[in-house]
Amino acid sequence: MKVLSLSLLICISAISFANNDSLFIRKIYDEALENGQAYQNLRSLCKDIGARITGSAEAKMAVVWGEKLLNSYGFDKVYLQDIEVPHWERGTKEAAWMINEAGEMEKLHVIALGGSVSTKGMIEGEVIAVESIDELEKLGEEKVRGKIVFFNKAFDQKLIQTFKAYGGCIAQRHMGTNAASKLHAKGVVIRSLGSSTDHHPHTGSMHYEAGVDSVAGLAMSTMDADKLNEWLAKGKVIIRMETDCKYFPNEISHNVIAEMNGSKDNKIITFGGHLDSWDVGEGAHDDGAGVVHSIEALRILKKLGYKPQHTLRCVLFMNEENGNFGGKGYAKWAKDNNQEHICAIETDRGGFLPIGFDIMGTQEQVELVRTYKNLLKDVQLYRFDPGYSGVDIRPLTEFYPEMIQLGMAISSQRYFDFHHAETDVFENVNKRELHLGAAAMAAMIYLMDKSL
Amino acid sequence: MKVLSLSLLICISAISFANNDSLFIRKIYDEALENGQAYQNLRSLCKDIGARITGSAEAKMAVVWGEKLLNSYGFDKVYLQDIEVPHWERGTKEAAWMINEAGEMEKLHVIALGGSVSTKGMIEGEVIAVESIDELEKLGEEKVRGKIVFFNKAFDQKLIQTFKAYGGCIAQRHMGTNAASKLHAKGVVIRSLGSSTDHHPHTGSMHYEAGVDSVAGLAMSTMDADKLNEWLAKGKVIIRMETDCKYFPNEISHNVIAEMNGSKDNKIITFGGHLDSWDVGEGAHDDGAGVVHSIEALRILKKLGYKPQHTLRCVLFMNEENGNFGGKGYAKWAKDNNQEHICAIETDRGGFLPIGFDIMGTQEQVELVRTYKNLLKDVQLYRFDPGYSGVDIRPLTEFYPEMIQLGMAISSQRYFDFHHAETDVFENVNKRELHLGAAAMAAMIYLMDKSL
Repeated sequence: MKVLSLSLLICISAISFANNDSLFIRKIYDEALENGQAYQNLRSLCKDIGARITGSAEAKMAVVWGEKLLNSYGFDKVYLQDIEVPHWERGTKEAAWMINEAGEMEKLHVIALGGSVSTKGMIEGEVIAVESIDELEKLGEEKVRGKIVFFNKAFDQKLIQTFKAYGGCIAQRHMGTNAASKLHAKGVVIRSLGSSTDHHPHTGSMHYEAGVDSVAGLAMSTMDADKLNEWLAKGKVIIRMETDCKYFPNEISHNVIAEMNGSKDNKIITFGGHLDSWDVGEGAHDDGAGVVHSIEALRILKKLGYKPQHTLRCVLFMNEENGNFGGKGYAKWAKDNNQEHICAIETDRGGFLPIGFDIMGTQEQVELVRTYKNLLKDVQLYRFDPGYSGVDIRPLTEFYPEMIQLGMAISSQRYFDFHHAETDVFENVNKRELHLGAAAMAAMIYLMDKSL
Repeated sequence: MKVLSLSLLICISAISFANNDSLFIRKIYDEALENGQAYQNLRSLCKDIGARITGSAEAKMAVVWGEKLLNSYGFDKVYLQDIEVPHWERGTKEAAWMINEAGEMEKLHVIALGGSVSTKGMIEGEVIAVESIDELEKLGEEKVRGKIVFFNKAFDQKLIQTFKAYGGCIAQRHMGTNAASKLHAKGVVIRSLGSSTDHHPHTGSMHYEAGVDSVAGLAMSTMDADKLNEWLAKGKVIIRMETDCKYFPNEISHNVIAEMNGSKDNKIITFGGHLDSWDVGEGAHDDGAGVVHSIEALRILKKLGYKPQHTLRCVLFMNEENGNFGGKGYAKWAKDNNQEHICAIETDRGGFLPIGFDIMGTQEQVELVRTYKNLLKDVQLYRFDPGYSGVDIRPLTEFYPEMIQLGMAISSQRYFDFHHAETDVFENVNKRELHLGAAAMAAMIYLMDKSL
């Protein structure tokens, strides 16, 4: 009898605990959906500032913007962390044409890959198409020298998670130009890493190994790549291309940080997105959305009078796109200052519909998050599977191997229509989807703060 | 020992059954995502035909379009079912202005509600704002007579499922004008039933009771409604409005039907969307998406060589928007011909991301669908809860109370940005989201065919 009563008591107390959580999460969603500020903040970041690659005037403006906005919400602390960042610029020339044996000529929709060198004037060469770096290397220097290498791998449309399709193509963008440089190609063009068939080329990071005699790399639109393939099936194709990208000395920029003090201890729950973006479009989904999600999550928790157990720290990371110096610098600084990190949550998959969280941790940590599965089903979050957290917070793992890391899982179907392209603008973000993302972040921060 | 072996056998056979299902569902998704035709079919329906309200030339074209497309896929049967439908037209005049006491005047973004009568020339009256029919009726005839009634209820943004917010406002659109007519108002304007704040008014069905001395009803954009509220807070406002809608005699139109024969029996699994749309935009999400989802589901099952147990019947319903005569006529015809219906599945919530299925049936039927929860999680379908099926298939319940009905659950965050507005066009549909919807339909049809 006594045993029964005790279990009953535990059961009732568990239900009432769950009910409190449920009520508080409902309040978070009400605030986000009815009085949410993420959408207006994103409009400001996109329209008052716009694209903000590190080293640009806009990146500096974004730091001031972030600090000012965070100060306006009256959080316990707002401060900047110095980060040394690269400064690369696209320059003013960016064009390419293709010419076939019949003498037909078409202008291509191209964009230099981020970090590309200049062509130093117009260059021209015969196109040689490959699907991978492996295939290129098998061809060898003799066949590649003097050619324009065309990396031709397309997204695997069958993959439901488009990030996996992206992962399958990223090598050609990140290391393809380097591989072609080593074989003394004249230049590189790649098929854009995008889901849709359109005329918007997608930029993104690329890397040269030290000492390589670097050539330039451009991405062309997926429609251009299809056309080039058609032409190549019929005969030789020449590509003419020009870009005048430049590197400048490194600069000091900043991670922008805001905190709510913990009532119990100084252990830290870090969450954020990245403030920098590529230099085209407005960085609306990548990662303006993550920036305003994170700011909004902290605003909502404060507005609702929540008193966290641990320090809740919102970090707007600088330089995720071309170096990740913000993420790396943050992790090192945290460790050097003996800051105990227990959890980190990243939002860097756009302002689309949130569907759950990917969990990077032990099986026990996965189960901890899944404790809240039923609660979160009520707010239409369904997926809580082992997975990747995020580029910015990933470096923390080295110093805090036991912490739990989460990446907000967001429907990825439309992400690679806009990613790193001129179409990544405010108009392509839906207000309700964005605000649901902010609410999901706030709910997970709340649950982790209570559980850890 | 023997018992153990038997359970082991059952267990292995269950796993292998699940594996087969999983493999077949994977094939469905591969076909939809890699070779899907839903997107190109939707482009044709939207661009070659466009808006297609019953009675219009476009509705007739859509019937021909549907029959031709279904025939091109070589299904076992393709045929038309006669349906008598109303014929209402918007006419050529549709305008309204508001004027305040300071003499300021603004043109409103308006659209006549579907089924409205004509104003018979320009009319003018003082605005009286209410939040509900109840509130209007409490004011009584004395205060309403000669006025322009403004139904002012806005979507409750806090509701995560926007269909619930829509449900909370639908009375003002569907019966508000009737209620105001009975109190001898001069005319009616309503705040559009939409999620977003913009300048696109939303039409939709409305109804007059027999014998009521009907006045005209218009919907204004949500931004106009906000502005009108601002003006009303300061003093009297006059609205001038004009529309010349007309009714014509009923016509004969058609449900368009295609079938794959069952190998086991003649029991029927019906699935579909509606072919008609409102007379603005292109009916892309409502319900071009459902039409091409359904056609594509049958195409995929045939292409994969699936031999159904039961008859699989794809129905493109006519006249969902203003009368539902297609849905009602279909149910009566099925019953009159002793057709045994065991399942019906509707897709009429847009071409956005599918997230699961709402189930209208017994607890056992809900559990039957949930048997496949783990299988469907692999294709990112998560929600299998009791809920509403759809307007077109709902009339079947009367004659087949024991059948299971399903409504494909689709993320509703963006639906009411476009619903019944000029923005419901092909460009606002994402190819991958649309193709995932077709695949989800095919997967559920397959699972129901195997289970029932």
